[in-house]
Amino acid sequence: MSTIEKAEVLVTSPGRNYVTLRITTSDGVTGLGDATLNGRELSVASYLRDHLVPLLIGRDPARIEDTWQYLYKGAYWRRGPVTMTAIAAVDTALWDIKGKVAGLPVYELLGGRSRDGVLVYAHASGGDVPALLDDVARLREEGYEAIRAQTAVPGVPGTYGVHSGAGIYEPARTSLPEEQAWSTEAYLDHAPTYLEAVREKFGFGFHLLHDVHHRLTPIEAARFGRAVEPLRLFWMEDPTPAEDQEAFRLIRQHTTTPIAVGENLTSIWDVQHLITERLIDYVRTTVVHAGGITHLRRIFDLAHLYGVRTGSHGAGDLSPVTQAAAVHVDLAVPNFGIQEHMGHTPHTADVFRSDVSYADGMLHPSDAPGLGVEYDDEAAARFPYEPRYLPVARRLDGSVHDW
Amino acid sequence: MSTIEKAEVLVTSPGRNYVTLRITTSDGVTGLGDATLNGRELSVASYLRDHLVPLLIGRDPARIEDTWQYLYKGAYWRRGPVTMTAIAAVDTALWDIKGKVAGLPVYELLGGRSRDGVLVYAHASGGDVPALLDDVARLREEGYEAIRAQTAVPGVPGTYGVHSGAGIYEPARTSLPEEQAWSTEAYLDHAPTYLEAVREKFGFGFHLLHDVHHRLTPIEAARFGRAVEPLRLFWMEDPTPAEDQEAFRLIRQHTTTPIAVGENLTSIWDVQHLITERLIDYVRTTVVHAGGITHLRRIFDLAHLYGVRTGSHGAGDLSPVTQAAAVHVDLAVPNFGIQEHMGHTPHTADVFRSDVSYADGMLHPSDAPGLGVEYDDEAAARFPYEPRYLPVARRLDGSVHDW
Amino acid sequence: MSTIEKAEVLVTSPGRNYVTLRITTSDGVTGLGDATLNGRELSVASYLRDHLVPLLIGRDPARIEDTWQYLYKGAYWRRGPVTMTAIAAVDTALWDIKGKVAGLPVYELLGGRSRDGVLVYAHASGGDVPALLDDVARLREEGYEAIRAQTAVPGVPGTYGVHSGAGIYEPARTSLPEEQAWSTEAYLDHAPTYLEAVREKFGFGFHLLHDVHHRLTPIEAARFGRAVEPLRLFWMEDPTPAEDQEAFRLIRQHTTTPIAVGENLTSIWDVQHLITERLIDYVRTTVVHAGGITHLRRIFDLAHLYGVRTGSHGAGDLSPVTQAAAVHVDLAVPNFGIQEHMGHTPHTADVFRSDVSYADGMLHPSDAPGLGVEYDDEAAARFPYEPRYLPVARRLDGSVHDW
Amino acid sequence: MSTIEKAEVLVTSPGRNYVTLRITTSDGVTGLGDATLNGRELSVASYLRDHLVPLLIGRDPARIEDTWQYLYKGAYWRRGPVTMTAIAAVDTALWDIKGKVAGLPVYELLGGRSRDGVLVYAHASGGDVPALLDDVARLREEGYEAIRAQTAVPGVPGTYGVHSGAGIYEPARTSLPEEQAWSTEAYLDHAPTYLEAVREKFGFGFHLLHDVHHRLTPIEAARFGRAVEPLRLFWMEDPTPAEDQEAFRLIRQHTTTPIAVGENLTSIWDVQHLITERLIDYVRTTVVHAGGITHLRRIFDLAHLYGVRTGSHGAGDLSPVTQAAAVHVDLAVPNFGIQEHMGHTPHTADVFRSDVSYADGMLHPSDAPGLGVEYDDEAAARFPYEPRYLPVARRLDGSVHDW
Repeated sequence: MSTIEKAEVLVTSPGRNYVTLRITTSDGVTGLGDATLNGRELSVASYLRDHLVPLLIGRDPARIEDTWQYLYKGAYWRRGPVTMTAIAAVDTALWDIKGKVAGLPVYELLGGRSRDGVLVYAHASGGDVPALLDDVARLREEGYEAIRAQTAVPGVPGTYGVHSGAGIYEPARTSLPEEQAWSTEAYLDHAPTYLEAVREKFGFGFHLLHDVHHRLTPIEAARFGRAVEPLRLFWMEDPTPAEDQEAFRLIRQHTTTPIAVGENLTSIWDVQHLITERLIDYVRTTVVHAGGITHLRRIFDLAHLYGVRTGSHGAGDLSPVTQAAAVHVDLAVPNFGIQEHMGHTPHTADVFRSDVSYADGMLHPSDAPGLGVEYDDEAAARFPYEPRYLPVARRLDGSVHDW
Repeated sequence: MSTIEKAEVLVTSPGRNYVTLRITTSDGVTGLGDATLNGRELSVASYLRDHLVPLLIGRDPARIEDTWQYLYKGAYWRRGPVTMTAIAAVDTALWDIKGKVAGLPVYELLGGRSRDGVLVYAHASGGDVPALLDDVARLREEGYEAIRAQTAVPGVPGTYGVHSGAGIYEPARTSLPEEQAWSTEAYLDHAPTYLEAVREKFGFGFHLLHDVHHRLTPIEAARFGRAVEPLRLFWMEDPTPAEDQEAFRLIRQHTTTPIAVGENLTSIWDVQHLITERLIDYVRTTVVHAGGITHLRRIFDLAHLYGVRTGSHGAGDLSPVTQAAAVHVDLAVPNFGIQEHMGHTPHTADVFRSDVSYADGMLHPSDAPGLGVEYDDEAAARFPYEPRYLPVARRLDGSVHDW
Repeated sequence: MSTIEKAEVLVTSPGRNYVTLRITTSDGVTGLGDATLNGRELSVASYLRDHLVPLLIGRDPARIEDTWQYLYKGAYWRRGPVTMTAIAAVDTALWDIKGKVAGLPVYELLGGRSRDGVLVYAHASGGDVPALLDDVARLREEGYEAIRAQTAVPGVPGTYGVHSGAGIYEPARTSLPEEQAWSTEAYLDHAPTYLEAVREKFGFGFHLLHDVHHRLTPIEAARFGRAVEPLRLFWMEDPTPAEDQEAFRLIRQHTTTPIAVGENLTSIWDVQHLITERLIDYVRTTVVHAGGITHLRRIFDLAHLYGVRTGSHGAGDLSPVTQAAAVHVDLAVPNFGIQEHMGHTPHTADVFRSDVSYADGMLHPSDAPGLGVEYDDEAAARFPYEPRYLPVARRLDGSVHDW
Repeated sequence: MSTIEKAEVLVTSPGRNYVTLRITTSDGVTGLGDATLNGRELSVASYLRDHLVPLLIGRDPARIEDTWQYLYKGAYWRRGPVTMTAIAAVDTALWDIKGKVAGLPVYELLGGRSRDGVLVYAHASGGDVPALLDDVARLREEGYEAIRAQTAVPGVPGTYGVHSGAGIYEPARTSLPEEQAWSTEAYLDHAPTYLEAVREKFGFGFHLLHDVHHRLTPIEAARFGRAVEPLRLFWMEDPTPAEDQEAFRLIRQHTTTPIAVGENLTSIWDVQHLITERLIDYVRTTVVHAGGITHLRRIFDLAHLYGVRTGSHGAGDLSPVTQAAAVHVDLAVPNFGIQEHMGHTPHTADVFRSDVSYADGMLHPSDAPGLGVEYDDEAAARFPYEPRYLPVARRLDGSVHDW
């Protein structure tokens, strides 16, 4: 029997921080799993290095389900982002290994291709409406069939999702959390106008998405959703915080604008009620934060039963390992909807050699066995960890608001 | 790309009828899928031969999920035993092929072993209580840790599940349906007494099961379930017909005797409410009748989320191909409960060469790539199809009752 | 006692495939039952010929209820299109016989006429809006008071329900399934505009229907239903797949556009929740696919209790035997709503001699004893079976969608 | 304004591992917060040291609520044991500081004493029934008015909660997880008998508790709860895993045995449904794992609204800092029920100087300002961290079970 001989926790920062788990078997097969939790990276690294790696050594790498249950139930205090991300890293690495052992890309182990490629959406943003329109035009030229649009809210410094300057948008860019302002009223006045400007200029021949980013109450989100119905959004994302899933019922009663939720949720129980009560249309949980391929498939299968499609988070804080794993899952599941695509910083490709390719609005996986990603230790060593935080939002009276 | 070159529908009757689908790829890899629907075998054979086989030729055998959706949604009129059994046969054969292509037993593709072996239960029965006790004693000696007990009901000819003479119990033994009698009152008076006799003689150190076989109304089942609570049954099976799943709520309100349902149900929608409302404890759907490995996993994953365990049907009317597939699934899923084990007629092993093995109350799968079952055409040819029907039950006034 | 002496399964293809069961009693009375399941015809033929016909010989043809229960419960694995269509054929033929024995048209045995005639709706379609308007004009001239309107969706080849050229619309026209494209967005943009064009040109003085054909998610269907509210549709049909009936609640919360469901559902349990929760307004189950006259009456009676009206499927894939049976049922039940009327291919009348007549937007049954349809074996022999499939739909990314 | 000048993460292992956060203000006031997550200690230490401590420096220690929201919402990926334990440590330390600044014990800031002392329950256990009875006798002599009883299950090695030998029971005693066996049937047979033995010998003049420790399905727990009703348990604890809170409804329908849940739950959302649907009677969340005093008060307030009382976890893996904080909270809240009391290892008192005192079945807090606990760095340094894991349970077939 092959056993796990080594499990290394690798931290690198080629433009942003990534934590990676690399498992090596006694047969010399290696597997990679992403363990990046933006702004809390080292806590996951410790969870792995100090608490899970000792449990992996000597285990059978083929027993993925058993290992998942062992780590999940063995934690006693379950769920939550740190735990689920650490388990995800192990699970993803083991699927990578299983694919290599089988000589098959991981999507083949998941039931094979269900589609030709993976529809992605890109981010357009701008400090004002003209800048947004320019950005949308650029993405349309690059072939994107689905575009998320955000602009700055006038008079409210530091709006979420607005890109300044060239390169990749990265909200976690400061060594202490940036404090951004928030005004629900200003946002509710402004956002529909720029979404309307996009539709006016570019028409309805592509998917238009918008991210509310947890900022509204349910009734505010209901008002927003109804206001933008003529713009036929593909979705409005994270309209309200999701801790109490039942909160979404109020939104649902008022608007037919589709709803997407899940990028910061980490288990099937966090979305169970949202799905089974049909309170959302797209579930955005990811391989890396929701327990790996094993657990994410369970979430997606539950969603399938209830007519909910997938729309996985794919920001730059997910490493190319997660991106590859996501594309494998997306390609295989029957109820795939869309995949977020932000790209990575320039140096990232030096560390993670990935064959995932973009063409004509779609991503395509590698056909190499496993996930098709290699980790370059030498390149990684050139980019040491630097602390970075996501911003925090405060309302105009200074009180903390959901970012 | 490998393609499907041939798909043969094989009918044989080595003691009982079996329909098998054998798919051969352009690379010469073959896969087997069971398509046996007891008493309606040729209808499934026709569904496959006349309607599905032409759709398979030239397809990519690796695209299991796509093929499943294509056959399911392409049927337009969906669900039901004939359709789901035919799709199951295709799906199972494709998993067999994928395992062989990967060089791995199918359970490895499903996440690997979650346990050492597959706990099974065997059938004890007798024309009267002493005969039942003898049969239980025999099975205990053979190492069974879980035993289903049934006896004839005095004054009611033709009770379900009672074995007369040597060999395998086979209810589908006549060329026209046997008409058996049914008296709810006689059954409700008698059944608790013989279950009590078993516990009195053999104690509580093994699992005792009982099959009501759809014969009771919910309130009668509630009464029965409560009556046998001191006997701590592992489960009472099929207490009432399941077309309207909500019917089980009434049983559930009255008794803590665990409930098992599903051997004649064929899709996730047939058990969705039973599971999500926690009206049952074990789901008994099978690979062959519930859409194959692809669909059965979805059922079992839903069950897992709601704390329901598996307890797949495993009567002799499931061929060794289903038995092997079941053991692969059972070994892998986290929420396995128990597996029915009836064995096959003597000549069955001539046709189906299977490495599934029994030891100490457990079944173990083959470690050969795929499912580990081979089909012997020459042997099969010696056993031509003979029409056989399951019995029909009539109440004492002559009206049709659920068998 | 009269007994069943012969039961013949007749397959013919006078422009499309039909399976018919003809039962002959020892008194020489014959009855016809339709057993056509579009694209899976031979599987039903086998179910009847190989598994049900042997059970019919010698039975009392007058015991319709007993035979229904015997075949339904005796199947053990219940429900589903193949099983319910086979039982429907037996049931319909026995009602035909009973009518002939009584010397009465079947509607008399069902309680007699509740109305003068049976309101029908016809299909208008076109490759573009002008063609659709022409087709509507033609049907209005033919006296139809209720018209279903569909057009091609620009840029999406192979839209459902669009008729190209003369003759009857028949989607099952290829010897392997046609693969049609689907774009939810293009459809949602386009469909309201042509329905509006119909109302603009022809006004509100007739019933306008539209068939979504299972293509939308509940929230998309909700949006569509709300968008077309000013057009006062008679119904929107099959807005979303119906496996989980609770899915319709979301649609229902957002729109008052009436909803019709049921053409591909085959038992009372498939519509039980839809009806008792008042999630639909019209139930479209048919004699042939939903277990025959005996079972369909039970569905319609349940619907009556909850204020739901009937709107039976009546496409060309239902033979004139089903058409006649439908008109008998429609004429008798208190809660009749509307009946689909597509007509049959030219040669069909050579095989099936039916007295059902159309006039002024209504169908009228024969007043002959029984159903009033005769089967011409000589004509039938001229039209041998040819395999035909309904299309399959794929989304633009190549994944299977509901057709 | 006073600011936070220093925040130290202290790890020590005086018999078992503890993580402590010590915050020092610019005024030289220090506060302590427990951050111990049994078996995952260093991950929380990293979460604090690497990610939260930099955010604390320079903040106003008086703004407890603002800091809580800042850390909770600023995490973006919320909830879960590591996150909530880290936030709890900060929150607890800030309450300690606020008490010292005010010159008042913390319970005074929480509204003052609601009772004279804090009723506690102790653990009795034994390898067999006589040993258990001896242990109960000892605790009764020590004045405990509430006793939790557990014994080994015959034939099942490694039962939860059974104490072997002298000293404190500590399940996390091995450098790799101990694998314990589990048999539901053996447990269900055995547990009621020893609880009955306790009542027989010691009568009903004290509170008898029992911990099921997540091992049963709802229907099994229902059976158990009903079986022990004559023994009038104070509660049965954690009868079934709580990820899906609705699971408890089934237990609730069958038994009036009170239910306690919460020791491994970490936020108000994890118990919201349990409380608002009145599915439990005691909520066992703790200061350290459920977000500190600020968040725990919100949980207890919600419980108060629904008639649910508190019963906080108090095992040895909660440091004396948590014990002190718990007693302050317990003393103040109107709906206190009971407090677990296990004591600490002998060396623990060398590191943590706490004035919490036990007398006559009750705990009493210190009346010193703040929490009344001091941390001895020199003593702590003598006890370096040693990896320890809680056990993992496997069923008899080798599959992972809830420990």
